[in-house]
Amino acid sequence: MLIKDIGEQGLLRILQKFCPAEIVGDDCAVIPTNPHKSLAITTDMLVDKVHFSDRTTSPYDAGWRAAAANLSDLAAMGATPLAVTVALAVSADTAVEWVEEFYRGMTACLEVYHTPIAGGDVVRSPVVTVAITAFGEVEENRTIRRSNARSNWAIVATGVHGASRAGLELLLNPEFGQNLEKGDRTSLILAHQQPKPRLDVLPILWEILDAAGAMEPPLSPPLVKGGKQESNYLSPPRSLGGPGGVNSPITIAGMDSSDGLADAIIQVCRASGVGAKVDRTKVPIPHSLTEIVSAQKALEWALYGGEDFELVLFLPIDCAKLLVERIGDGAAIVGITTDSTDIWLSDSSGIYADVALEIDRGFQHF
Amino acid sequence: MLIKDIGEQGLLRILQKFCPAEIVGDDCAVIPTNPHKSLAITTDMLVDKVHFSDRTTSPYDAGWRAAAANLSDLAAMGATPLAVTVALAVSADTAVEWVEEFYRGMTACLEVYHTPIAGGDVVRSPVVTVAITAFGEVEENRTIRRSNARSNWAIVATGVHGASRAGLELLLNPEFGQNLEKGDRTSLILAHQQPKPRLDVLPILWEILDAAGAMEPPLSPPLVKGGKQESNYLSPPRSLGGPGGVNSPITIAGMDSSDGLADAIIQVCRASGVGAKVDRTKVPIPHSLTEIVSAQKALEWALYGGEDFELVLFLPIDCAKLLVERIGDGAAIVGITTDSTDIWLSDSSGIYADVALEIDRGFQHF
Repeated sequence: MLIKDIGEQGLLRILQKFCPAEIVGDDCAVIPTNPHKSLAITTDMLVDKVHFSDRTTSPYDAGWRAAAANLSDLAAMGATPLAVTVALAVSADTAVEWVEEFYRGMTACLEVYHTPIAGGDVVRSPVVTVAITAFGEVEENRTIRRSNARSNWAIVATGVHGASRAGLELLLNPEFGQNLEKGDRTSLILAHQQPKPRLDVLPILWEILDAAGAMEPPLSPPLVKGGKQESNYLSPPRSLGGPGGVNSPITIAGMDSSDGLADAIIQVCRASGVGAKVDRTKVPIPHSLTEIVSAQKALEWALYGGEDFELVLFLPIDCAKLLVERIGDGAAIVGITTDSTDIWLSDSSGIYADVALEIDRGFQHF
Repeated sequence: MLIKDIGEQGLLRILQKFCPAEIVGDDCAVIPTNPHKSLAITTDMLVDKVHFSDRTTSPYDAGWRAAAANLSDLAAMGATPLAVTVALAVSADTAVEWVEEFYRGMTACLEVYHTPIAGGDVVRSPVVTVAITAFGEVEENRTIRRSNARSNWAIVATGVHGASRAGLELLLNPEFGQNLEKGDRTSLILAHQQPKPRLDVLPILWEILDAAGAMEPPLSPPLVKGGKQESNYLSPPRSLGGPGGVNSPITIAGMDSSDGLADAIIQVCRASGVGAKVDRTKVPIPHSLTEIVSAQKALEWALYGGEDFELVLFLPIDCAKLLVERIGDGAAIVGITTDSTDIWLSDSSGIYADVALEIDRGFQHF
């Protein structure tokens, strides 16, 4: 039996049998290191011609993107980066310049977030391959997990979506988007070449959640039955104005939108056993995008394009409103969770009928 | 300029410019996480046909060896393993059985040391490639660094050397070693296929060092001048019987012998600015090895063969004697450090003249 016979999902199912269920399934693995803190770890492997190509990505940008993707996974867990390691495979005929530029791109991105490269490995291979492992620290009660969402919570996108997909199209297809202003063109291309991991969102988020938590009694953990999370969560939704409790942090849910906004929403809903109603008019899309493609195509790229590296956070509605206001720059409440398990794309403007949000339009490796 | 023009050392020099000097240069990167503990991290990348081959290594053994190499790096720093992550690149035509066997081998080795696989990444590549990152915790004052050695300390090999190289020869060359008893043959082959990281040495080592430290005043740190470690360490060597101080742990030096016993001795001496006198009659070699090759060849394999994954520890002589006695199984004091910077292979039996220990006979990647 070959990998192509079972596909990526089949392979993942086999490999997951070798990993303890309690530490996998999120953007990072989480390893408790002391009673209050955990280590968050994420690994990405990048292969020449599969994950980067000189056609659309300079080695500098390939390095930047690799660093950004890993830092974004840490941000998605609520973790502060400590360091990354880089394992590099090159052939004897690889240009030294390529390697240096790749490292320059990586460190340029990492330096913004004060994250050092803590060594790695260098080996020989016929195919240039890079494996980056990033690790960070997260306080136990701040760990953002996919399985933490509750019904009647807001779904927040921390910024616009579809820009990275549009930037890729501009790089691949010189005929495309010729009516764009130069600044807009550069901005879409940069969204693809040098995405910014949203670690900047975390301190704002903690401030809001800590303030809300101090006014709240602790939330009871979601009900678990037979090893699966119960989808009908029975407690009523809480507002910010409840009876006061001190030091009761609200643990929220989320992941990053590296595989697309739709994918992030669906993954979190499934892991949490909740449904969602996403409003297509609320999905934040860059204005310039609607100048070069139809509204339908722009929405498609925003939902399924991927690689925007924003955070998709699930949290109580009042906290979400404060968060979106504080972040600005396109951040939006795009929908709300429900106590069903259906995930609908609806239209508050009343033009389109509700359609189910799909998952299988993202990137498949095999 | 291509990689082959500058070689592995040239490439490493370039890449090290991107890493903070204070966290690289040992078997693991060391990241302080709180005042008393650090995170030790190590990454290895393995490429099909370069680092493993179906000719000499089953996928099970390739997985075992990959896990063992990383755990050995943690042991070499004095770190207790927390978890590993595994990034895997396979092609659509890779056999699922190969992947499953590789993971079975990895987990078989990891389970001995209670270390989980905390997820990873799976991607597509024309060349099967595996990147493993291992994480461990080490108390700050127990961190075993290459730069910690002092003159007049003992150099300990925690077990026999040359067995892995002999096992490889037995696998590659069916004509070789036909006079070996079956048990000895199996034992040499297993030393190559399923090496055991010496994490078991650590608790014994701490017990001895803590007992010695409790009787000692704290050692002052080695002198540093102009950013380079001073090679002439001025304090006289200390014995165990000195005036008593409590909780003054002795911080020792070492690394693992994955690149050979000679390489480990030379690397630690260079990093610490000390010299060494290694006694060729004290290098622990498996008895069966001398039945199949000349004494000269056996010594060469022991010093330069590599992949024995023992620890090479530099510590005060009295502690070393206790350690060797407690570990047994071939553990030996193979030499002593000096206040010169020369590294000699001498002969206490008086047959051979002193020769300089060489470094450039180990494995070069490019």
